[in-house]
Amino acid sequence: MAGNIFGQAFRISTFGESHGKAIGVIIDGCPPGVVIDEEFIQSELDRRKPGQSKIVTQRKESDTAQILSGVFEGKSTGTPIAMVIYNADARSKDYGHIADKFRPSHADYTYHAKYGIRDYRGGGRSSARETAARVAAGAVAKLLLRAQGVDIKAYVSQVGNMALGKTYQELDLEETEKNIVRCPDPEMAEQMIEYIKAVRKDGDTIGGVVNAVITGCPAGLGEPAFDKLHADLGKAMLSINACKGFEYGSGFDGVAMRGSEHNDHFYQEDGQVKTKTNYSGGVQGGISNGMDIYFRVAFKPVATIVPEQESINEAGEQVTVVGKGRHDPCVVPRAVPIVEAMSALVIADHFLRQRMMMV
Amino acid sequence: MAGNIFGQAFRISTFGESHGKAIGVIIDGCPPGVVIDEEFIQSELDRRKPGQSKIVTQRKESDTAQILSGVFEGKSTGTPIAMVIYNADARSKDYGHIADKFRPSHADYTYHAKYGIRDYRGGGRSSARETAARVAAGAVAKLLLRAQGVDIKAYVSQVGNMALGKTYQELDLEETEKNIVRCPDPEMAEQMIEYIKAVRKDGDTIGGVVNAVITGCPAGLGEPAFDKLHADLGKAMLSINACKGFEYGSGFDGVAMRGSEHNDHFYQEDGQVKTKTNYSGGVQGGISNGMDIYFRVAFKPVATIVPEQESINEAGEQVTVVGKGRHDPCVVPRAVPIVEAMSALVIADHFLRQRMMMV
Amino acid sequence: MAGNIFGQAFRISTFGESHGKAIGVIIDGCPPGVVIDEEFIQSELDRRKPGQSKIVTQRKESDTAQILSGVFEGKSTGTPIAMVIYNADARSKDYGHIADKFRPSHADYTYHAKYGIRDYRGGGRSSARETAARVAAGAVAKLLLRAQGVDIKAYVSQVGNMALGKTYQELDLEETEKNIVRCPDPEMAEQMIEYIKAVRKDGDTIGGVVNAVITGCPAGLGEPAFDKLHADLGKAMLSINACKGFEYGSGFDGVAMRGSEHNDHFYQEDGQVKTKTNYSGGVQGGISNGMDIYFRVAFKPVATIVPEQESINEAGEQVTVVGKGRHDPCVVPRAVPIVEAMSALVIADHFLRQRMMMV
Amino acid sequence: MAGNIFGQAFRISTFGESHGKAIGVIIDGCPPGVVIDEEFIQSELDRRKPGQSKIVTQRKESDTAQILSGVFEGKSTGTPIAMVIYNADARSKDYGHIADKFRPSHADYTYHAKYGIRDYRGGGRSSARETAARVAAGAVAKLLLRAQGVDIKAYVSQVGNMALGKTYQELDLEETEKNIVRCPDPEMAEQMIEYIKAVRKDGDTIGGVVNAVITGCPAGLGEPAFDKLHADLGKAMLSINACKGFEYGSGFDGVAMRGSEHNDHFYQEDGQVKTKTNYSGGVQGGISNGMDIYFRVAFKPVATIVPEQESINEAGEQVTVVGKGRHDPCVVPRAVPIVEAMSALVIADHFLRQRMMMV
Repeated sequence: MAGNIFGQAFRISTFGESHGKAIGVIIDGCPPGVVIDEEFIQSELDRRKPGQSKIVTQRKESDTAQILSGVFEGKSTGTPIAMVIYNADARSKDYGHIADKFRPSHADYTYHAKYGIRDYRGGGRSSARETAARVAAGAVAKLLLRAQGVDIKAYVSQVGNMALGKTYQELDLEETEKNIVRCPDPEMAEQMIEYIKAVRKDGDTIGGVVNAVITGCPAGLGEPAFDKLHADLGKAMLSINACKGFEYGSGFDGVAMRGSEHNDHFYQEDGQVKTKTNYSGGVQGGISNGMDIYFRVAFKPVATIVPEQESINEAGEQVTVVGKGRHDPCVVPRAVPIVEAMSALVIADHFLRQRMMMV
Repeated sequence: MAGNIFGQAFRISTFGESHGKAIGVIIDGCPPGVVIDEEFIQSELDRRKPGQSKIVTQRKESDTAQILSGVFEGKSTGTPIAMVIYNADARSKDYGHIADKFRPSHADYTYHAKYGIRDYRGGGRSSARETAARVAAGAVAKLLLRAQGVDIKAYVSQVGNMALGKTYQELDLEETEKNIVRCPDPEMAEQMIEYIKAVRKDGDTIGGVVNAVITGCPAGLGEPAFDKLHADLGKAMLSINACKGFEYGSGFDGVAMRGSEHNDHFYQEDGQVKTKTNYSGGVQGGISNGMDIYFRVAFKPVATIVPEQESINEAGEQVTVVGKGRHDPCVVPRAVPIVEAMSALVIADHFLRQRMMMV
Repeated sequence: MAGNIFGQAFRISTFGESHGKAIGVIIDGCPPGVVIDEEFIQSELDRRKPGQSKIVTQRKESDTAQILSGVFEGKSTGTPIAMVIYNADARSKDYGHIADKFRPSHADYTYHAKYGIRDYRGGGRSSARETAARVAAGAVAKLLLRAQGVDIKAYVSQVGNMALGKTYQELDLEETEKNIVRCPDPEMAEQMIEYIKAVRKDGDTIGGVVNAVITGCPAGLGEPAFDKLHADLGKAMLSINACKGFEYGSGFDGVAMRGSEHNDHFYQEDGQVKTKTNYSGGVQGGISNGMDIYFRVAFKPVATIVPEQESINEAGEQVTVVGKGRHDPCVVPRAVPIVEAMSALVIADHFLRQRMMMV
Repeated sequence: MAGNIFGQAFRISTFGESHGKAIGVIIDGCPPGVVIDEEFIQSELDRRKPGQSKIVTQRKESDTAQILSGVFEGKSTGTPIAMVIYNADARSKDYGHIADKFRPSHADYTYHAKYGIRDYRGGGRSSARETAARVAAGAVAKLLLRAQGVDIKAYVSQVGNMALGKTYQELDLEETEKNIVRCPDPEMAEQMIEYIKAVRKDGDTIGGVVNAVITGCPAGLGEPAFDKLHADLGKAMLSINACKGFEYGSGFDGVAMRGSEHNDHFYQEDGQVKTKTNYSGGVQGGISNGMDIYFRVAFKPVATIVPEQESINEAGEQVTVVGKGRHDPCVVPRAVPIVEAMSALVIADHFLRQRMMMV
């Protein structure tokens, strides 16, 4: 009921505050026999970790995940897999000045309104630091899915109003990880990086969009009427810090199309059912149809900025706040592995759920 | 695990196929003492029902909800409230010709791939007829919320590429229900209606956007990290038939803004915490902040069109399908009460969940 | 959260009051392709229905279940199966005299304390009438399990202090349904029937014990640490009206045994793992081991008795209550099909859950 | 779906194997503002820990719980509380000889049948070591409940066939913790201790019964029809290792009583509703009535014994196993704090759930 558990079959439970002792996750429902490649898990965490480049926050965390249970001789045993990441570089004193102030567009006020008490250091539980636990769990989900031929790739498609005007088919997604902004178009990547640097120099922040593509997903995943595959993907994305929107397939642009244009016609090729176009985004009636699943996720500009801002404190008095504390000028480069992780968690969950519906 | 249950505290379980005996819902978790106004429930169903105007499907259903349990002397008792709506005007013979064919962009193929068996008549479970059960349950949620001062209003803001270029503050939302397309701008409504008529004449369909505004929602609703209020709203909307996207507050447009523009500054007025702007859309860190909650929902064009289309059948053979069966040329007029109902279910659920977090 | 939903994978949601319009159930999670034998469902309801013999309540209900959804051409489709049973013979006026009184050992006071409002007619939601919905759902679970070779048989082993001093292996369980008390020992059955008649004549009631045996259950069902198979069976039984205790395998008697006696030694026969003794009751570490699962369920005497009793009313005043309203002198004959139904629901649920753990 | 999560509102997720790196728990749903007394949590763990006396297993574990999150300045914040206990004294080499053998009445075979892979060291996940995590979480639940006036006390009432022939009212429960067997009758305690020592000398084990009493529980807790308070208590107890049975109030003995004897008559005293007798065990219709809640829990003899036993190995070959590995001769002394912890978790869960039903 409190909302720190995600998934039904492949279910994760996360914990941890930005400046607490540790963050971590328990996975309950990973089937036995999955090869748990610890190096892979760490490499996923490295893609998300702070301090990885000049355009992300400079907090220094090794983000080393320690597996505490559920793995025996390199394989999952079907019992809960717990992973813990101890916090190292927490500069809590940076936050003393906002202990009783509500930073604009942060979760300070809402946590105060909801709980009456909050760990204000580094944003506490509302910090995106929590997503490291998701990435660790998502890496296990990826290992499960990889063995099923499912591949998930996310990339940055927009920073501010610099939008990559290409579909995923027109891009070489192998390029994504070759630059620090994670945009698969090297030229555009360069421009985005320069732009983010300029924004940072201003002490300001900027939003962006992450696109994702899931290939190799079998037909049949998704549980209507409510747990439609795209609905669970949407919720997963919207639960990521700073996310403001989600669209899949034709998305908001599909609105302006007529049915006669938008309908994806079926045909069969090599014994496989396919559609000529894919405005459906690989999901029809909430169930995967075997085509590529693709979607876009909008992220707002980070709320922490350097210039002085007007706000109030717990007593309701007018105050000013200044942006101490290390932060990202733009979340999307580090959001890429998070979007992938959450996608993997949703697909793994529905993959296991579909087994229950076998005739 | 099968996905026909929605909500945690105010939990609904729906059933029913388009051409089966009945559709319906059980609400488990409605607190006792809520005045159950049956006329109001019926009036909400009437807003959704087919045959209500010339621009919606002409299937004739009275959509009369019968309450079977959970209400005593006009009030909820805290026990499950079951409601059933018997199907009347099901012309199943209209569907015999597609019994083994997969209509483009319908759920025929995916249901076949998932379950191996399907009630093809009228789309079976994948039909939007299922949403009548949601509207009945949502009406009860509205009654619960109304007593708390929460009001939910949705309206059509776009049909095809005819977009209402106004914010909800610039509109008179009392106008919404005065026209059959449910657009609060009378002039634009007229144009939308004419446009939908023209599309229908072509045997074609068109998409649209529904906006929603929730006022009077107290601060503190939403359960991070995963069950953020906007994430649950997003999932709720994406679970509605034909939905392709969801954005709240600044949404996809917020991407191009800088933090210094986008941040909502707090101030206090009449003892109430408010923000000067509301790009946050009333939700910060996944928790309501007391400001208006607003969002947009994209709907694709209906898949059923009159012209002949290419497709395949269960045997994988190339076939053509034609659009028999009554259908909507554009879903958004009837989607308005559904968006409201799903919003009410999410807010009621989080309203009850928040009670558990009381100090 | 409100407790009217049971099961995770094979999940049921029940509704209905004793004297309301109807009672019923939605099954969410029945896999597709199960042959839904309506006659069998009805025959199970007939085993539970009132008025079936002289030793049960004389309320006259045909208890006809109507399937509203989820079945197409005689088979389950994987979508929710809703069943409704309309109430017929509700003599609500029998209950006017206790509208504001708390009958001893009934749920009148606790429902009042919990909800502040209650449908007092016939006990409302607290009536065992609710269990008809469980039996209907359990019949579907039985149909699913039957195809897997799982068989569930319950019988009466004790009424008052008349205890059947035999193990299930010493009995012919085919005899159970041949007498109205459902005791498989014909001689003992006769005595029990006479005893219940005598108790009824006194206007009094008596308790009893129901035993159950599940054969053909595959090894591997059950989800430690918490959802152990016997723990879920125990909860299922304890959720039945009037249940006071549950024990499986050696049960409370096992307490006095030494490990050297109690341990069940493994051996292999015809390629199957078996144990020489079965004090484990077919469940070890919370997971089925392929041996027979057996357990015992204690039921208290029905609270409704004819003689005048002391009690209080809503105002806290001392009052007397008399036992109007038709009732059972002993619940165990009718509890037999309920125990079987709840067993079937638990086994079906774990059968589907186990599929997720497949390597 | 995998069964390592317990509770709905006060929800715990546990992990860990007997000889893995650590065991632990996340509590999701502890309300904010609860004073988290770490010394109390540790003292509860000390009551359960191995090596505490001569009649329990001699494994040496300090069982020190480290709180990783969810607590700020000594109080819960409403966010997940994670606790971890690192394993210290794991002698895994004691278990090499049973790596592929199935010990009689252990979970070796069933884990093998279910998962195909298992951490055999010390019983892996099936070890009662897992219950330390429950005790840590239960201590937090106790702290929450203590502030509400709820008190939970368990004690040993039987070892082998040495049964304490007294009700809890006839005992001084303050005596329980004064002896190592945790029986509140000092004389009987002495005899039980001698008996357990004798059994241990034989290399054998013996069963026992733990009784529990919950006082100060408000009326109104419990969620019919399925999540009845006693049904959730029963499941909680049955989920504890070695548990074979559960009964509450009159329990199995109530079976032989007539309704006229068994009914608890209401009266009012000092403005409080009470019953003259309490055969109901404080729960009526699945909801607490404000009277003492009491129940009994049966535990079988521990399966690990010293003498050689017949069994089979993974290949199905006949083998002998001998009882290496440290173990308890009788579980009940250490089961007392576990029974209390699970009771606290159930009551805390229903206490929070009841808040949702407030008018």
